[in-house]
Amino acid sequence: MIRLAVDAEGGDFGADVVVRGVVAARQASSVPFATRLCGDGARLERVLGELGREGPGFDNSEFVIEHCPDVITADDRRTMVWKDKAASSIVRCVALQKEGQADASMSAGDTGILIGSALFILGRAEGVSRPALAAFIPTPVKPVLVMDVGANVSCRAEHLAGFVELGCAYISRLFGRSDVRAGLLNVGTEPAKGPDEVREAARLLEGNKNYIGFIEGNKVFSGEADVVVCDGFVGNVLLKTSESFYSLITGFLADSREMFEILSEKMDALNPENYGAAPLLGINGTVLKAHGGSSVRSIKNAALTALKAVGK
Amino acid sequence: MIRLAVDAEGGDFGADVVVRGVVAARQASSVPFATRLCGDGARLERVLGELGREGPGFDNSEFVIEHCPDVITADDRRTMVWKDKAASSIVRCVALQKEGQADASMSAGDTGILIGSALFILGRAEGVSRPALAAFIPTPVKPVLVMDVGANVSCRAEHLAGFVELGCAYISRLFGRSDVRAGLLNVGTEPAKGPDEVREAARLLEGNKNYIGFIEGNKVFSGEADVVVCDGFVGNVLLKTSESFYSLITGFLADSREMFEILSEKMDALNPENYGAAPLLGINGTVLKAHGGSSVRSIKNAALTALKAVGK
Repeated sequence: MIRLAVDAEGGDFGADVVVRGVVAARQASSVPFATRLCGDGARLERVLGELGREGPGFDNSEFVIEHCPDVITADDRRTMVWKDKAASSIVRCVALQKEGQADASMSAGDTGILIGSALFILGRAEGVSRPALAAFIPTPVKPVLVMDVGANVSCRAEHLAGFVELGCAYISRLFGRSDVRAGLLNVGTEPAKGPDEVREAARLLEGNKNYIGFIEGNKVFSGEADVVVCDGFVGNVLLKTSESFYSLITGFLADSREMFEILSEKMDALNPENYGAAPLLGINGTVLKAHGGSSVRSIKNAALTALKAVGK
Repeated sequence: MIRLAVDAEGGDFGADVVVRGVVAARQASSVPFATRLCGDGARLERVLGELGREGPGFDNSEFVIEHCPDVITADDRRTMVWKDKAASSIVRCVALQKEGQADASMSAGDTGILIGSALFILGRAEGVSRPALAAFIPTPVKPVLVMDVGANVSCRAEHLAGFVELGCAYISRLFGRSDVRAGLLNVGTEPAKGPDEVREAARLLEGNKNYIGFIEGNKVFSGEADVVVCDGFVGNVLLKTSESFYSLITGFLADSREMFEILSEKMDALNPENYGAAPLLGINGTVLKAHGGSSVRSIKNAALTALKAVGK
């Protein structure tokens, strides 16, 4: 049985939302899995108790509470939290993998702290110079992986080239495909276009059978590439801007309740809640970052993504 | 009367679309304006002739043809086109301003060549270190100016700080406002977040009354800032990705003709065709870059934007 370690205190809405999300995932999943909930023991006891009273379909024995007394504050040295606050929920959910007590970790907490914990506790996978955070975006034909979306704000050419390899390996493993297509995000498709590091990355990728060349922003959501590679600053902006744009559109639609309802099913495929968690690729383990503003539904989908990432 | 110089050969769809777009702008504009059409003389004669036969409301005397025999090829040194191909339509439409024969220039042709021509022929405005291309995006409350969207793929801190000033001055001039709010696009709002040049730009902007701090991607389409500043790589990706996302959504909606029609009016505000042309800020003159894939309607709106930019 897959064992999931969850940072129950991470995210903007606290333990109640995280636990409910994981319970919803357990109910939705055909494959059973065990969850270790990291956080304040007393609080988690209470949340699980409430859920037990609310209804059936909830097996308490599949949820183990990992009491984490450490609390991270603004005074902590961010890069040392993995060591200084080893008993915090975000660090513990990663460390449980190292201790052989979990197969995957997920958190909706601070991205930098999660990545630092994964890097220093689990370590980089062999041959990887920079791990990267990857996120799926919807397209008319298939989900597309965009990376990096926030682990590295600046990247050298060899990092970008490495992301192409990491992303292709992930898609290939997840979907059992050998024909993965990856492109470097750029402002044009001609070889002379773009910043030095992007042009140099293209040269490093010559001969890579998965690499299809530069891809412009207006092709990102068309599904031409399975993997779109950029630095973490650009990826973060791309992802958050699309969310922002999505909100704008649903805002416009909300004026008419009828239209909104008719459309919601179709639009649902575009809802950031559905593509929940971003895997951190290139480390020794399976670590997923859920959105800070995750709802119960987002956490549910993040947990299901975590199971899929481990299952392969 | 405002005199507009138009690169009639620029853009993916050729002179026919550009000329029809400008004629449509003339018919829609309450303020009369004169147009100088730069391009192949014989072709432009034919297009104008066809339009004249098609219907009324078209005054031939408002359109002067500027025959441009030079054709730019792939062999041309891109940075020298402004000099080597001085009689090409894209270079002439800019040079006419320098010669005092036009008040504004617009082209749907190559961005780099248009910017190079503007820089070398018209020159930078006083105190400006880097001109930038700016584009309006729609939000629920007002259009927001994003810049740079493609003139400078990489930027130093002082360039980003300069863009804040350029953008605020433009909005202030265009809408007669003194309370313009500008933010630097970043991956977080805390001072320690983001790449060096963005954090340093924030320090340079301390005390600037229009500067409101870092703005994340998920706030770009909310209208919190009037001006969103980033380097040209990020801005280009932001703009083109949003277009791509918009196409994805309209693609989903197109399955149901009824829904599509009900929605089209509302969605129209989000159509890239409507926010047509991007002004190049920081040069001695008024130069607008229209989208390469401009339709007749895009060109029409680009021309109307050009008039507005001059009119102030």
